[in-house]
Amino acid sequence: MRAVDIIINKRDSRALSRDEIRFFVDGVTGGTLPDYQASSLLMAIVLRGMTADETAWLTDAMVHSGVRLDLGDIPGVKVDKHSTGGVGDKTSLILAPLAAACGVPVPMMSGRGLGHTGGTLDKLESIPGFRVNLTLDEMKAALRKTGCAMIGQTAQIAPADKKLYALRDVTGTVESIPLISASIMSKKIAEGIDALVLDVKTGSGAFMKTEADSRRLAESLVSIGNASGVKTEAIITAMDAPLGVAVGNALEVIECIDVLKGHGPQDLIDVSIELTARMLVLGKVANDRADGERQSRDAIASGAGLQRLQQIIETQGGDPRVVDDYTRLPSVPGRHLVKATRGGFITAVDAELVGRASVSLGAGRDRVEDPVDFAVGIIVHAKPGDQVVAGDPLLELHVRDTAKLDAALALAGRAVSIDDAAPPPRRLIVGEVR
Amino acid sequence: MRAVDIIINKRDSRALSRDEIRFFVDGVTGGTLPDYQASSLLMAIVLRGMTADETAWLTDAMVHSGVRLDLGDIPGVKVDKHSTGGVGDKTSLILAPLAAACGVPVPMMSGRGLGHTGGTLDKLESIPGFRVNLTLDEMKAALRKTGCAMIGQTAQIAPADKKLYALRDVTGTVESIPLISASIMSKKIAEGIDALVLDVKTGSGAFMKTEADSRRLAESLVSIGNASGVKTEAIITAMDAPLGVAVGNALEVIECIDVLKGHGPQDLIDVSIELTARMLVLGKVANDRADGERQSRDAIASGAGLQRLQQIIETQGGDPRVVDDYTRLPSVPGRHLVKATRGGFITAVDAELVGRASVSLGAGRDRVEDPVDFAVGIIVHAKPGDQVVAGDPLLELHVRDTAKLDAALALAGRAVSIDDAAPPPRRLIVGEVR
Repeated sequence: MRAVDIIINKRDSRALSRDEIRFFVDGVTGGTLPDYQASSLLMAIVLRGMTADETAWLTDAMVHSGVRLDLGDIPGVKVDKHSTGGVGDKTSLILAPLAAACGVPVPMMSGRGLGHTGGTLDKLESIPGFRVNLTLDEMKAALRKTGCAMIGQTAQIAPADKKLYALRDVTGTVESIPLISASIMSKKIAEGIDALVLDVKTGSGAFMKTEADSRRLAESLVSIGNASGVKTEAIITAMDAPLGVAVGNALEVIECIDVLKGHGPQDLIDVSIELTARMLVLGKVANDRADGERQSRDAIASGAGLQRLQQIIETQGGDPRVVDDYTRLPSVPGRHLVKATRGGFITAVDAELVGRASVSLGAGRDRVEDPVDFAVGIIVHAKPGDQVVAGDPLLELHVRDTAKLDAALALAGRAVSIDDAAPPPRRLIVGEVR
Repeated sequence: MRAVDIIINKRDSRALSRDEIRFFVDGVTGGTLPDYQASSLLMAIVLRGMTADETAWLTDAMVHSGVRLDLGDIPGVKVDKHSTGGVGDKTSLILAPLAAACGVPVPMMSGRGLGHTGGTLDKLESIPGFRVNLTLDEMKAALRKTGCAMIGQTAQIAPADKKLYALRDVTGTVESIPLISASIMSKKIAEGIDALVLDVKTGSGAFMKTEADSRRLAESLVSIGNASGVKTEAIITAMDAPLGVAVGNALEVIECIDVLKGHGPQDLIDVSIELTARMLVLGKVANDRADGERQSRDAIASGAGLQRLQQIIETQGGDPRVVDDYTRLPSVPGRHLVKATRGGFITAVDAELVGRASVSLGAGRDRVEDPVDFAVGIIVHAKPGDQVVAGDPLLELHVRDTAKLDAALALAGRAVSIDDAAPPPRRLIVGEVR
């Protein structure tokens, strides 16, 4: 088998065989396939597409580039959640303790923020002492103790994905539903879960800008998961505006704790409850979605979810007192308000612009190796549909380095749109795929 | 400017700017653009195409990756010929001495055989002592003395093309009219000629299998040449069957000498005269095509062309006695005949299969670094339209290593098709673009 023939097959719109796909992935993993051949094939895949079979084979080959964890010795139906990424998208820190408190083991492997979107690992690490790099044994011990482990991807999980993603990032080959699907699902399948709920974001701040593309991605992900023995379903949720009001790592942790205390913004609560309810059904502790929702809300009302978050933090080396004392989290005194220059209705809070503004304050990274400032970020004071008068605060920037303010304001300053007419009501949960 | 943005622009079907194309070519030439980004962009170009402007800019950037020779101190209108490559395609050794004998300086830079097609340099080097690697000064001296220099591409000529071609060869990105056009024309423009006649091959043994593709390529090449100040025209000629009867380096040299002696097969004579006549018109020594044809035929009849070939050989260090004594050329005693298994009309002699059979005997190379056996090859005894009876010789294989015979026969054995009905007459010169 020659790599160039595989490339030519895909270039000429022929479906690849399972063996050809395995040859490609094994070559990438083992370093025997030069990057220039891999990137040429990746571009051909982006432009020619892949069938459902090819995508499933690609995912399978990527799973088998590393180990598929066996969590069979942990009792219960293990359920994880994965989001395709957004701005202010912090549901993991709410739903993981809630689901665990309701009896569903949650072995969660997350990523870091990249580009304008945040990452769960960065948020967790804003909690002093919190360790995300548990060993497999530590992870299992944490799962047994608290019903939850929140960690980073280990080197044994789908190493082909790590190499391919690095290459895709610099060769213009990120935007492809088959490649995105295989990347996401290979990691999720390898982590040894029984079921998975996906939160596929749609809109200006999401990877998929249109509902049709988001649905196609959701269908691809669900199909791969179910074919691999991981019971999978997806909801499609709006990411035209930030989710909740906090954007930035420590700021988002505070907002999650608020939600677990029974407060917090409605959109964040709604998406978190929806995802948790579905996890409880898949985890076989709830009879149906309504039962799942009731149990989830009960776990907030009783404080069980908050208590579980505290245990998770403590078990993974973090300072559990942050739950009661937000001053133990990183913060900065610097504030800058973006104010309304006119009155009217908020018609848009552009998630991507807010995300990029937050990144330019230091809350995120443009390159994987960049450091992150946990304290900085943005609080959204006006959400789509809100009415404001001139001078009302729209965005509150938490700033450490005033030299970064100009770049952040250039983005944040045009993120919020105001009009005379009220916008149509937003749909938050746009659809589902199961 | 970031390479990944250029890749994304082309991936999303946007035309690249002149600056983006220059950034890409300069990066390839200077080694600052990683191969994996270059190959990803090449695949996007193959699948998304390039406008005429983009192709012209690409060619120009590739010309400027090296030097554009100045032959202004050589009197006369310098004219070259380029063929897109075929099997038995040996016209250069006929038309270069003919045009030079008629007063047109021919500074010819040629390539080596690759894949199933032959290359002029290999044919020339089958003449004992012939040097194709002249310095620029030697080339000019030869041009002044004999009106012709036949050399290989020097390192200063379009170095970007050399790097890009090596990459395209292994990344499935060869088949693209813009990339092929820029590769051919950058080298031709850089060699300092005033005019160019192109022989674009079409058919099973050619790079372009259909007449429509061949015409598109011819139009692209002619447009680039004229835009760069090189007066360019093209003919499109059949390459469904080998041109002439000889395939293999020394065998083809003998056939060319035969033509210059007034013998040789009709199809080879016709294409050679057509190309020479056009060179004479472009070189301003003939008034029109008919005058060019008359002068070309006169140069054969008078022996001036043959005498000029002898001078060229001598000037470039070769043994000029080969012209009168073919035993001074490499040869092998081994012969194997492929015979007709039935009577009828020859309907096809598949050029690609004959070419590949010749390569497998050792006459060509699969990889640039492979050595070539000048002596081996194939003589075609039956051409399309000929009538044969069972047992008639079809192909005569000149074999050195009998271990290679099986592989060659597996290809040659199915190259010739025989049917009861006579095929329609072949069109040899299919069209022109000017």
